Amino acid sequence: MLLKKKKKEGESNTEPVAPATTDPFEKFRSIDWLREWTRDRQREKHFAKRHKSPVVRKLHKLWGTNSGWICVFMVGLSIGALGGLITLGTRYMSDLKNGVCLDRFWLDQQLCCRWQNDTLFVTDVCDEWKTWPEVLGIGVSKNQSFWDYTVEFLFFCIIAAFLTTWAALLVYMFAPYASGSGIPEVKCILSGAILRGYLGKMTLFVKTISLTLVAASVLSLGKEGPLVHLASCLGNIYADLFPKYGRNEAKKREILSASAAAGVAAAFGAPVGGVLFSLEEASYYFSVKTMARSFLSALIASVVVRLANPFGTYQTPLFFVDYRMSWSFLEMIPFILLGIFGALIGCLFIVANLKWCKVRKTTRLGKHPVIEVLVVTIFMAAVAYHNPYTRKATSALIQELFDRCNYGGQPTDLCNYVNITSDSGEPLLTADNYGHTGGLGPNLKSALWKLALALVCKLIFTVFTFGMKIPAGLFIPSIAMGSIAGRLMGIGMEQLVLTWQGNSPWLKEHCQVGVDCVMPGLYALIGAAAVLVGVTRMTVSLVVIMFELTGSLEFVVPAMVTVLITNWLGAYIYERGIYDAHIHQNGYPFLDGREKFESTTPVKAVMNPRPGGVPLRVVSQDTVTLGDIEQMLKDTHYNGYPVVDNEIDNNLIGFVERTDLKLLLNYYAHNGEIGKGHHSSQSTVRSNSLSATSIESALNDLTVYSAFSNATTTNASNSRGQLGEKTASLHIPNKLMDTTPLSIDGEMPMEKVVDMFIKLGGRHILVTKKGRLLGLITRKDATRYVREVEEQGSDDEHESEEIELIGEPKPNEVNNGGIEYIRL
Amino acid sequence: MLLKKKKKEGESNTEPVAPATTDPFEKFRSIDWLREWTRDRQREKHFAKRHKSPVVRKLHKLWGTNSGWICVFMVGLSIGALGGLITLGTRYMSDLKNGVCLDRFWLDQQLCCRWQNDTLFVTDVCDEWKTWPEVLGIGVSKNQSFWDYTVEFLFFCIIAAFLTTWAALLVYMFAPYASGSGIPEVKCILSGAILRGYLGKMTLFVKTISLTLVAASVLSLGKEGPLVHLASCLGNIYADLFPKYGRNEAKKREILSASAAAGVAAAFGAPVGGVLFSLEEASYYFSVKTMARSFLSALIASVVVRLANPFGTYQTPLFFVDYRMSWSFLEMIPFILLGIFGALIGCLFIVANLKWCKVRKTTRLGKHPVIEVLVVTIFMAAVAYHNPYTRKATSALIQELFDRCNYGGQPTDLCNYVNITSDSGEPLLTADNYGHTGGLGPNLKSALWKLALALVCKLIFTVFTFGMKIPAGLFIPSIAMGSIAGRLMGIGMEQLVLTWQGNSPWLKEHCQVGVDCVMPGLYALIGAAAVLVGVTRMTVSLVVIMFELTGSLEFVVPAMVTVLITNWLGAYIYERGIYDAHIHQNGYPFLDGREKFESTTPVKAVMNPRPGGVPLRVVSQDTVTLGDIEQMLKDTHYNGYPVVDNEIDNNLIGFVERTDLKLLLNYYAHNGEIGKGHHSSQSTVRSNSLSATSIESALNDLTVYSAFSNATTTNASNSRGQLGEKTASLHIPNKLMDTTPLSIDGEMPMEKVVDMFIKLGGRHILVTKKGRLLGLITRKDATRYVREVEEQGSDDEHESEEIELIGEPKPNEVNNGGIEYIRL
Repeated sequence: MLLKKKKKEGESNTEPVAPATTDPFEKFRSIDWLREWTRDRQREKHFAKRHKSPVVRKLHKLWGTNSGWICVFMVGLSIGALGGLITLGTRYMSDLKNGVCLDRFWLDQQLCCRWQNDTLFVTDVCDEWKTWPEVLGIGVSKNQSFWDYTVEFLFFCIIAAFLTTWAALLVYMFAPYASGSGIPEVKCILSGAILRGYLGKMTLFVKTISLTLVAASVLSLGKEGPLVHLASCLGNIYADLFPKYGRNEAKKREILSASAAAGVAAAFGAPVGGVLFSLEEASYYFSVKTMARSFLSALIASVVVRLANPFGTYQTPLFFVDYRMSWSFLEMIPFILLGIFGALIGCLFIVANLKWCKVRKTTRLGKHPVIEVLVVTIFMAAVAYHNPYTRKATSALIQELFDRCNYGGQPTDLCNYVNITSDSGEPLLTADNYGHTGGLGPNLKSALWKLALALVCKLIFTVFTFGMKIPAGLFIPSIAMGSIAGRLMGIGMEQLVLTWQGNSPWLKEHCQVGVDCVMPGLYALIGAAAVLVGVTRMTVSLVVIMFELTGSLEFVVPAMVTVLITNWLGAYIYERGIYDAHIHQNGYPFLDGREKFESTTPVKAVMNPRPGGVPLRVVSQDTVTLGDIEQMLKDTHYNGYPVVDNEIDNNLIGFVERTDLKLLLNYYAHNGEIGKGHHSSQSTVRSNSLSATSIESALNDLTVYSAFSNATTTNASNSRGQLGEKTASLHIPNKLMDTTPLSIDGEMPMEKVVDMFIKLGGRHILVTKKGRLLGLITRKDATRYVREVEEQGSDDEHESEEIELIGEPKPNEVNNGGIEYIRL
Repeated sequence: MLLKKKKKEGESNTEPVAPATTDPFEKFRSIDWLREWTRDRQREKHFAKRHKSPVVRKLHKLWGTNSGWICVFMVGLSIGALGGLITLGTRYMSDLKNGVCLDRFWLDQQLCCRWQNDTLFVTDVCDEWKTWPEVLGIGVSKNQSFWDYTVEFLFFCIIAAFLTTWAALLVYMFAPYASGSGIPEVKCILSGAILRGYLGKMTLFVKTISLTLVAASVLSLGKEGPLVHLASCLGNIYADLFPKYGRNEAKKREILSASAAAGVAAAFGAPVGGVLFSLEEASYYFSVKTMARSFLSALIASVVVRLANPFGTYQTPLFFVDYRMSWSFLEMIPFILLGIFGALIGCLFIVANLKWCKVRKTTRLGKHPVIEVLVVTIFMAAVAYHNPYTRKATSALIQELFDRCNYGGQPTDLCNYVNITSDSGEPLLTADNYGHTGGLGPNLKSALWKLALALVCKLIFTVFTFGMKIPAGLFIPSIAMGSIAGRLMGIGMEQLVLTWQGNSPWLKEHCQVGVDCVMPGLYALIGAAAVLVGVTRMTVSLVVIMFELTGSLEFVVPAMVTVLITNWLGAYIYERGIYDAHIHQNGYPFLDGREKFESTTPVKAVMNPRPGGVPLRVVSQDTVTLGDIEQMLKDTHYNGYPVVDNEIDNNLIGFVERTDLKLLLNYYAHNGEIGKGHHSSQSTVRSNSLSATSIESALNDLTVYSAFSNATTTNASNSRGQLGEKTASLHIPNKLMDTTPLSIDGEMPMEKVVDMFIKLGGRHILVTKKGRLLGLITRKDATRYVREVEEQGSDDEHESEEIELIGEPKPNEVNNGGIEYIRL
């Protein structure tokens, strides 16, 4: 059944003949890690050969070693600055929804009031800052009238819609790739996919601006994922300044890994968390050197972004908390409950979001992204305005939920505790001297309802927001949902303990509520971690990020317990995190090295050629002609072709890349044909080899350092032959081929083959039997196969019998079994 | 040149013919990751085939998924308890050096006084606790006389010598493997080496006791490395309770990775740091599942070890600090200086320690490990006694160095600040109201000298201690050295700023010394990180461990900067950390996946057979006889043998493991010979295949689940033949072979081959040319080659010419070129 399905899809099972296709697999090209790594090594040797001076060599080596560091340093610096700018811009525009600074319209509320008061004390209330009703002269009285409210409401909705619509328009018109969080795509790119323009300058520019715009709106989104994308763009752009990295896709990904770390660091001011995020979640190959570079990049980014914060100090975490308490083992029960909640809401979110994204993709909705954004924004603004907890900026909400009561600042509704007495005047619940705790006051009671509503709103909003064609991250909404739930549970626990305290001497002795017992802010923190894990399925990096965010390390044990519970339960309900789920749903070619893939299907049933598949194009060294190759390059767009000695023996002798074949054709066109007799031995080929000048131009044009590293600089013949003689036979020099391509036996089970693709990073593996070429399997074939098996449930045990039905291609029959020889 | 050297060593270039050898390569066997992973998968399928009931299958699957979690949970629990016990024991015996609790001799000083005073207040002074002079009735007066001092001194030295000598004797007599830190060996084991008994019960038992003994002595060592070793022992022992892990070396290493994390967590109470240590430093393959399990294991261990601390709370970090200050950017200069110091002292330590270990190994010193320990202890005790900073327990010293002044407790010498006035009575330096800072008091001045001396002593002591035949870790001594240096620099900076403050209004305004400027304790913390990095070359994990140790997160930026500086400079001076350096010096077969290995030497120059190498033993399917195989198994001890079809074609058809060949012989011995004609086709072989009962016994004896998973249970013939007929020809069934072994072309450069060994984890790769077997290269061959290239400097560019001299084995000549066929 599995194989039958593949038959139908067979046509597109290798690289596309015609690149225009809707299959997302074809949008991405994949890199050959093995080849790129080799090229990097050969590039060094090539340089060493050209430059004999030891001083030049040493300088070159020093530059080679340090250029990577310089590059990641620049990335860290830039993304830190960019992160700071976006924060400032967001704050200004967010305040603009409510009012304006009359004197200096370019200042946000805090800056405006600080300017006027000329003090270090930060206040949000001053004369210069006018709300919109005040500006319009409606609400001079401080008692909010109906008109005030309405005008404020309208301004709020209109400005929010204005912001997001502009963002959506920018994305729609100039850079479609700027939408979404970008983490799934960055993950694919780090795994070796190439998506032209995804990390380009236009994407960087548009995403920066539109992110600032949408982050200031009421939409439920964060700027963390987009910052990772922006950092990767910067990494990509800076890498191009250094040929070692810019011209080598594998080396470039080292820079991109470090950039991803810097992106998270810039978002949260969490350098260690950033490195771990890149390691655990984003990167595919992560060497120790990359770790050290990520470290530097993340460090610089977090320092710079903190410097850009005009009021905080550069040393304060984003959501600083200071609980000064310890937790009790009994509290593990509510923590575990929060973990379960996190898993449930995480899975609910993932499934709902995926469903909605599918609806968007398959219906007409997907064709009007700007209108969708506009409508959603107006709706959300209209709903969110009436609840202070959805109206205020999400980061301010989170800080309020994390904070303990009466710790500086004015008491909020969440700290509205009162004494409660029974009808007979007997004290039941007593608010302590500091107003830390006690019975629920009226404001707190209404706050609880509003919070519960806000939780539901946030969940629904985020489901609809994530996936729209605007930049949108998931971290902050997830943290917000989790901390609301946590705070609610924390207040519940507090009241529970308070009520029981009268009856239980043990509780009374061991637990002074609010002092070293039940801290609702801690519950908010734990809840935030739980939901974040439920959504993203990160573990270690997430715990570290949470601690760097809050600056508190004492609660590592409860946080880890919760994270583990959420992770287990979450994986049980729905196996993928949101990023992997999107990768999967969008059909990106991502070969996940973490999931254990099991299949004993022999590779010969998956490789090309196979019944129903496209024929394999093979170069036959003994008989191939110039015209054959020209035709082949025209007909197909494969990255490379296997080379066999001749059609009878069919012995594999190498693999030649498309670019090198083109180069060869080019050379023949300029230097005339070389008869087959001329290169019967390799040494003849060498002396007749490509000229120095054509090598130089080839290097510049195609950056194929490797293929030519040994080409001797012999007399370049100026006699230019005609390319008209298509029947002239051709010989592919060994230097142009990979003469030791990876080859495996046709019986090798797919699980081993997939393992080899993941671990070795090649783009193709040749399949042979006793040295005779049977076929070729590409990374994409393997990825597609893994996906098919996953979708059809576990690999069937009786599969081997089905394969017999298709028939094993016998070595002698292979010539007729799909391989097309390039010959006369 | 390179190749010439190899010629001489050629004899031992594969697995040993006679296992008795002094080459450390031969002490270790290496596992075949590929095969073990396959076996694990096949084990599952085998079970599924035997048990058709869905309930049983489901239960089995549930058990399979959860047994790993249960195992690491047990490891965490046990190592946490063990760590707590060792701490208690060490404290008791450490106090015993100074005195005894008269009433209750089994109590240490703190417990004794707490018992007597019956209060929660922890004090070290009470009547019940008697120093040794008091016990002997000499020192009743509190004024220390010369005699008091001498008696105390003698007791101190004698008890210290007594403790370490016992420890050394235990190690010498019962468990030689219990010596050292164990981290280098655990690293090798995690990379796939097998060292019988290294993780055994005896090692666990002896190392636990001797670690407690030595940690209480004056020797400069810590218990962190040994705890990692102990945790690995526990992991190994518990894994044997679960067949899935105990019988599969690759799966067992998943448990061991998690155990290593638990070991660090138990040592420092640092769960996240433990996981990162396992990831960054210890483990070879580290999947996401292993990460989650390490997480659990480390979590449990850190909770349990904190519970075992009778005075602290289970939530306090080991060296809790509370600076409540921020750092200034100008302080980066001293921090960077500390980083440079860390790199220098780290390299100095590594080089000196390696030199001394070499002396120990090559001279007669190595033959008297117990005497060495005794002499060193007496010498060190005699020196250390006279300096309070070397005399006291290292962890107490570190806490004192980290602490800020006047933060609870009695003021120490390090906080002896005074007002300083000029001769004219004008105040120059003023101690602030809280005694935080000011001019240097007399006690502080002398403390500075003592600290400087202590630093030198610690360095020398540690060089001589690490490598002796007792359990000894490096973390605590390194932290001690670093924090002494840091504190010294911090006090220096403090005085500098104090002196300048009078002259610089800027300094006066921006920097209140001790309050939010220059905190000597912070410098100690940074210095500790620097030296630890200089010695071990860990980066991210180390930063996290330091923060979990101290509970302070605000200083992540300066710590990271320092760590980066140290890491760069350290790598520049001496490329390896202490663990890798020991692995290298001891010649352990560790194929480091992190170091970039470059060599274009073709594999055929390194594989066997090659000129000067041992002949390769090959099984020729068509002609092999029973006697041949018996003889081959007797002559050689290889893990497996390539199988070719016949000597003329020499086509590779598979690879057969030694254990499977033995099994086959055994079967033939019991079931009589089977003529070659009987199994001309594979189906015949199958029906004539091994009987059900012999399969069962084979499974139990040799755990070769894989080889027999498909063997059909046909009629077991009871006719037992004689094994006397050695000339009977034999056929190796496909089910007993790996019919798709990894094979590569002889021209493949070694850098690619080494890459394949590291990433795929196989034990051997077959080398072929057009399907014909050329030879075989083992993981050990590759490891040895990498080491040789490293020792001879970088791979020579002109190598390829040298290879020509040796001569390329032509396919047709291979039969005579070293391959020995097993035939009549």
